[in-house]
Amino acid sequence: MTQSLLLRALAGETLDTPPLWMMRQAGRYLPEYRELRARAGSFVDLCLSPEMAAEVTLQPIRRYGFDAAILFSDILMVPYGLGRSLRFEEGRGPILEPIKDRSGIPVLDPDTFIARLAPICETVARVRSALGPETALIGFAGAPWTVASYMVEGGSSQDFAALKLWAYSDPDGFSVLMDTLVDATVLYLDQQIRAGSQVVKLFDSWAGAAPESLFEKWVVQPTAAIVRRLATLHPDIPIIGFARGAGVMTRGYGAATGVTALALDSGIPLAMACALQAERPVQGNLDPIALVAGGDALAAETDRILDALSGGPFVFNLGHGILPHTPLAHVEALVARVRG
Amino acid sequence: MTQSLLLRALAGETLDTPPLWMMRQAGRYLPEYRELRARAGSFVDLCLSPEMAAEVTLQPIRRYGFDAAILFSDILMVPYGLGRSLRFEEGRGPILEPIKDRSGIPVLDPDTFIARLAPICETVARVRSALGPETALIGFAGAPWTVASYMVEGGSSQDFAALKLWAYSDPDGFSVLMDTLVDATVLYLDQQIRAGSQVVKLFDSWAGAAPESLFEKWVVQPTAAIVRRLATLHPDIPIIGFARGAGVMTRGYGAATGVTALALDSGIPLAMACALQAERPVQGNLDPIALVAGGDALAAETDRILDALSGGPFVFNLGHGILPHTPLAHVEALVARVRG
Repeated sequence: MTQSLLLRALAGETLDTPPLWMMRQAGRYLPEYRELRARAGSFVDLCLSPEMAAEVTLQPIRRYGFDAAILFSDILMVPYGLGRSLRFEEGRGPILEPIKDRSGIPVLDPDTFIARLAPICETVARVRSALGPETALIGFAGAPWTVASYMVEGGSSQDFAALKLWAYSDPDGFSVLMDTLVDATVLYLDQQIRAGSQVVKLFDSWAGAAPESLFEKWVVQPTAAIVRRLATLHPDIPIIGFARGAGVMTRGYGAATGVTALALDSGIPLAMACALQAERPVQGNLDPIALVAGGDALAAETDRILDALSGGPFVFNLGHGILPHTPLAHVEALVARVRG
Repeated sequence: MTQSLLLRALAGETLDTPPLWMMRQAGRYLPEYRELRARAGSFVDLCLSPEMAAEVTLQPIRRYGFDAAILFSDILMVPYGLGRSLRFEEGRGPILEPIKDRSGIPVLDPDTFIARLAPICETVARVRSALGPETALIGFAGAPWTVASYMVEGGSSQDFAALKLWAYSDPDGFSVLMDTLVDATVLYLDQQIRAGSQVVKLFDSWAGAAPESLFEKWVVQPTAAIVRRLATLHPDIPIIGFARGAGVMTRGYGAATGVTALALDSGIPLAMACALQAERPVQGNLDPIALVAGGDALAAETDRILDALSGGPFVFNLGHGILPHTPLAHVEALVARVRG
């Protein structure tokens, strides 16, 4: 079987043309997604429909031939699996019932959790069977710090005051929540891998909200625990870590967590990306707004990244998710430029 | 005249007890501020009332004896001075009429600009005459990138799409806006210094939204221009640069802009803060949420910073503004701990 470019890059190989995929590549910038979304029920229903979620996952592969498909789902399906209420409101994002203290922390019952998330693993299996060997399938989960932020704040937050206040004031209680999320995430990713995910990615979207002492304890340590346990279960499955906004702390994050590769946001300068690449493969980090801009700016930004990172193991991607108002022609131009 | 601890630290002196002040120290966590705010008109009216703004500036000095007073004002008074509409809505923040393209860029008429902002310089003069020599008075402005973000987006933003799209797509047009802001900022800070500000701070609150190429061009270069021109006019006035969220790029920012000192947000780990301190004084960087938490967490976080940075020129501060729901007793505890 031809091994996909993504798996080769994540195995440390330097390739003439880097594999290319884009965060949120299955999503609102695609007319075929918007058409399907209008027919689907709630966003959670869509995530839990193997037929529709598989279709959405495959749409960008059909249109652009990206080197990887990433499961269409949401990082908050872990709280859903733990029995928490979850809905998405247009313009507000996710809404959960906030957890106020230790008494509100859900208990992980593995059988119930697996049953609630079984449709997602069914999606994984369907997608894998629909893809050719050249296209890798990426599963994912939110990292505990980020998932906890939504569970504690009750949704999106500007300052993460409730989350951080709990972490500072009651580290013992907070560790119960984090341990639960570590256990649940390992179980969930194990199921995704058994269903056909060949790579998993841990999204720590709000890692940048954690100052140094919280970062070490609640970003690095839980991620390291997940990586260690997954490596025991599935030693050959690469794990991409994305500690968004971690800045200076990204290097320590890579070393201390043991992730296979580092996804880099657009705030990481390329000299640092190069230095990180000496230790493990890197993925990133085009500014999604440069993709909206297109033209000379897109070409220049793309070339800067290719010039800096093509000499080592590298996956071309954005630094954050593709924006809904991104012109399709700009995505085409990017694909053409990366593939030379 | 006794020189204030702040001026000594900014001149590079290592002190037994660091000077202490807090971003947004004049503000909503103080009952005396809330009482005055309820009597004032709009937020802009408050900024333009020398009597009230001076009173608000002095309130935290009376209560806590901080080593510096910072002018009570807003970074958007520069757009106001340029004739742009400005109002603040509860829960939404500032509202401006967004500038769409080059044709909407205001022209700086120095006399009109100075006249519109004259009440603020009157506030500076009143505050300076009310302070003892031990308390330094800090003036400030927003840095051009951050001020431009509000002028282009029309207010606060999540992703700075309009700002960055303009910067990528039409750098020539964008440079007209930025040059205007550089000129206006130099004029404004010159006036503040003539009125009695002994230190100025440039707040680049959204520096972290600029990827490397935009950062070099639109964060570093305009700031360097302001620093160069102010240094010619007022060679003895220290300039604190605050490139919030700049992470890895903070070191280059310090070297390339020539700011006297670096204000550090809570995302800068202390080993990096120490390295930066070898080149210039640093200020920071306690997480404002640790101050809300109080107790053991506050003591531990405060001590970590004191232990790491007391060996060089250092100003104790938060990494971001004090939060409105911060308990007064925690501020008292912090002051006592820093002053030993």
